Amino acid sequence: MATIDLNADLGESFGAWTMGHDEALLRYVSAVNLACGFHAGDPHTLRKGIVQALAHNVAIGAHPSYPDLLGFGRRDMALTPDEVFDCVLYQVAAVKGMCEALGGRLHHVKPHGALYNRAARDAAVAAAIADAVRRIDDRLVLYGLAGSCLMTEGTAAGLRTAGEAFADRRYGPDGTLVPRSQPDALITTTDEAVAQVRRIVHQQQVVAGDGSLVSVRATTLCLHGDGPQALAFAQAIRQALEADGVSIAPPYAAAP
Amino acid sequence: MATIDLNADLGESFGAWTMGHDEALLRYVSAVNLACGFHAGDPHTLRKGIVQALAHNVAIGAHPSYPDLLGFGRRDMALTPDEVFDCVLYQVAAVKGMCEALGGRLHHVKPHGALYNRAARDAAVAAAIADAVRRIDDRLVLYGLAGSCLMTEGTAAGLRTAGEAFADRRYGPDGTLVPRSQPDALITTTDEAVAQVRRIVHQQQVVAGDGSLVSVRATTLCLHGDGPQALAFAQAIRQALEADGVSIAPPYAAAP
Amino acid sequence: MATIDLNADLGESFGAWTMGHDEALLRYVSAVNLACGFHAGDPHTLRKGIVQALAHNVAIGAHPSYPDLLGFGRRDMALTPDEVFDCVLYQVAAVKGMCEALGGRLHHVKPHGALYNRAARDAAVAAAIADAVRRIDDRLVLYGLAGSCLMTEGTAAGLRTAGEAFADRRYGPDGTLVPRSQPDALITTTDEAVAQVRRIVHQQQVVAGDGSLVSVRATTLCLHGDGPQALAFAQAIRQALEADGVSIAPPYAAAP
Amino acid sequence: MATIDLNADLGESFGAWTMGHDEALLRYVSAVNLACGFHAGDPHTLRKGIVQALAHNVAIGAHPSYPDLLGFGRRDMALTPDEVFDCVLYQVAAVKGMCEALGGRLHHVKPHGALYNRAARDAAVAAAIADAVRRIDDRLVLYGLAGSCLMTEGTAAGLRTAGEAFADRRYGPDGTLVPRSQPDALITTTDEAVAQVRRIVHQQQVVAGDGSLVSVRATTLCLHGDGPQALAFAQAIRQALEADGVSIAPPYAAAP
Repeated sequence: MATIDLNADLGESFGAWTMGHDEALLRYVSAVNLACGFHAGDPHTLRKGIVQALAHNVAIGAHPSYPDLLGFGRRDMALTPDEVFDCVLYQVAAVKGMCEALGGRLHHVKPHGALYNRAARDAAVAAAIADAVRRIDDRLVLYGLAGSCLMTEGTAAGLRTAGEAFADRRYGPDGTLVPRSQPDALITTTDEAVAQVRRIVHQQQVVAGDGSLVSVRATTLCLHGDGPQALAFAQAIRQALEADGVSIAPPYAAAP
Repeated sequence: MATIDLNADLGESFGAWTMGHDEALLRYVSAVNLACGFHAGDPHTLRKGIVQALAHNVAIGAHPSYPDLLGFGRRDMALTPDEVFDCVLYQVAAVKGMCEALGGRLHHVKPHGALYNRAARDAAVAAAIADAVRRIDDRLVLYGLAGSCLMTEGTAAGLRTAGEAFADRRYGPDGTLVPRSQPDALITTTDEAVAQVRRIVHQQQVVAGDGSLVSVRATTLCLHGDGPQALAFAQAIRQALEADGVSIAPPYAAAP
Repeated sequence: MATIDLNADLGESFGAWTMGHDEALLRYVSAVNLACGFHAGDPHTLRKGIVQALAHNVAIGAHPSYPDLLGFGRRDMALTPDEVFDCVLYQVAAVKGMCEALGGRLHHVKPHGALYNRAARDAAVAAAIADAVRRIDDRLVLYGLAGSCLMTEGTAAGLRTAGEAFADRRYGPDGTLVPRSQPDALITTTDEAVAQVRRIVHQQQVVAGDGSLVSVRATTLCLHGDGPQALAFAQAIRQALEADGVSIAPPYAAAP
Repeated sequence: MATIDLNADLGESFGAWTMGHDEALLRYVSAVNLACGFHAGDPHTLRKGIVQALAHNVAIGAHPSYPDLLGFGRRDMALTPDEVFDCVLYQVAAVKGMCEALGGRLHHVKPHGALYNRAARDAAVAAAIADAVRRIDDRLVLYGLAGSCLMTEGTAAGLRTAGEAFADRRYGPDGTLVPRSQPDALITTTDEAVAQVRRIVHQQQVVAGDGSLVSVRATTLCLHGDGPQALAFAQAIRQALEADGVSIAPPYAAAP
């Protein structure tokens, strides 16, 4: 039977500002990535996110970022690999310790935003992230773009990895994501998103923008938590996969 | 044989700014308190501090603060006990995880600055701190002002505590510290600081500003790391105690 | 003919996080208070707010705060009057300069949150705020709680002041606001809010929680911009005042 | 008679952390660039810097940066030109308003660190900076790398510009600065720094690393304020220029 993990970013509020539909989204996913305080996610939001995730029995991940609260971690920054190592070490340590203090355990780490993108193509940054994760706990699963540099470096560091694909992003013929700056970057109808997800899960393929079939080997799918259609997408994808008899669970049979 | 712990704050640099004489001070203390990022101490500074502390074989503590980088954590802030709990949980978790990732372990927690002062007199805040520390690891030692509210709440939470006294602060007849706003708040000569330390260690007493003898039961002494005389004080105190045959070690026979 | 100013806080988003219904609220008010970056309001949000306010021809004010982004400026902080002076000088200067660069001019200053509350009762802090505002531009109008310490100090500094009353807060028999911690602190029905506003404008009175009549001399009324009822309240109050023939305009006949 | 401006960065302390030798350096320069709060320079430090600059009768400039306190503004960040515009507008407005409130006036703007480097080669970012400066006050002088993109865009925006050269940086044969990552990037002896300065002032040339002569047309020279030799360099350069009969003054005969 096919198995897939559905993950979503959680806990991206900050202080008086809220973001996302955390409680609702938790019904559809098997894993969450918690903001660690550098792009979002203050200590209170983080604790609340951990408690919610534990109540829904989903796998908990840390979602470390560049230190850029104003830019929500979405702007590339010229950090050295050493600076990335230190920032990831700090953030993952904070979330891991809070998870354990609240009765859970940390399952995975997925870099956020511009750090995710940089780690997908920059071997030195990817290696710094993998090294930081490994030193915190070598049983942690490293999430990253399927087939990317981060997955290679994670494996080289002795970590288990989970390649990620996207329900609502369109792919180019070379397997990369169509940049958000292009008009057809996003999939905006539920039917198309569900079709892409089913093709990834059952055939390890996506249909690229030019109609060609591209191989995508993913063990986790990212569901977005904000935007007007986020919850409708999540619900439809979950239902379609369950109707297909797909098992939805965190990678490596993690008991959260 | 008398035993006392000598502790100092460490890792209070931030980014391009440096503070303190960390490397030099490490020769004189048995325990350090590392800034956690809220009043000082970015991820790089924190990692460097842990590595230095491990190299000098001193006990490592977390030094959590109010979130006030601009005010260096020295300004009282009206946080609720719940907000204090979350902030302490996050900061201690970060330092503990980084310690373990770098081959050490966390030994104690000492609140910083305005949070330290608030916890000394506010039972609800003190209880929130003790609860956060206990949930992270109930073997951690809670440092705080000797005889204060924080020590009481730490004990009530089932934690081991270490009451702190000061080499360079003058005491009032009621055992409280003379406020820094008063002209005679600080002891400025090495001789007087050494005399106060020896009296605390050997007789569990200090001479108050009015000449009366006041009981102070401390298991740890705070050595300050900045200021022009910091290193001279630290060296003289260490030497005087060693000459007296006092054993200088972290409380509860901690192997760092 | 009676005249009153209706003011609202604007531009309290930050980075990727939005707050309030800025565009909608602008239809009902004659003055806005723009967050300056210390509790909310990054440079982009601030520019957008100024452009919106100019398009709606409302008076523009700066809304300076304690430096507490995480706490949204709502937590009291032990800043010295000198620190308050510097923080207000910086924030008001930034908003004034941006207003002028974008073709407008700054009309007033209203402290935010915990700084507002502190300035209402602490003469030294109130004087520091008034001094900072006066040094920036002595034609600026200082907004603050009607009858409070801040109004006294503003007048003493030679500034024109605008005493503020609240449509949706209940008053005690001594003219102070019932603290938010009490169950009856807020007025939650439109009818009651409108009645309180009309009584303030026409009779310079409110009905206190115990039924007694209390004198409130206000030249500006605060309309809140968030919360589910914010827009409905604002619309109803504006309509009721216009139906009464009340002129709604910034104090001191300001041309925005 | 030859004229040159000597400028230095000032006010780069933050909260409890100090940086630079501000008071001493002020004796040698004709212009200072004040950190605006984004890479350094809190409101108190900024006020102190303005007061010091006024006391020494030097021209006051704003020194805006990327928003990166942890990285001291030295790391490139992928801000859009619009984001740069907003950030520069805010920072320059804050410093200009504070200057005027304290009895001075703002004379120039010089971008800091990574923003300076980006503006030297990226026309869209350079144009955004020039536009922000012009909107604040079109009499402000725009400082930037001599011959760079920022100077071109400043002129195109109708601003007066001041091309900057360096006393202690070595140049390549194409007139660019040797990157700091290379071993010979910095000039470390006073004699060589003085020789380079005299050649720039008298012959509008530098000797490049390969011995060739390169044209450098500068109206301002940057003196660094930190580092062990900073004050010695500044003093020697000032004395050598005065001995040569060079007039040291801000560009465009600015009365500070």
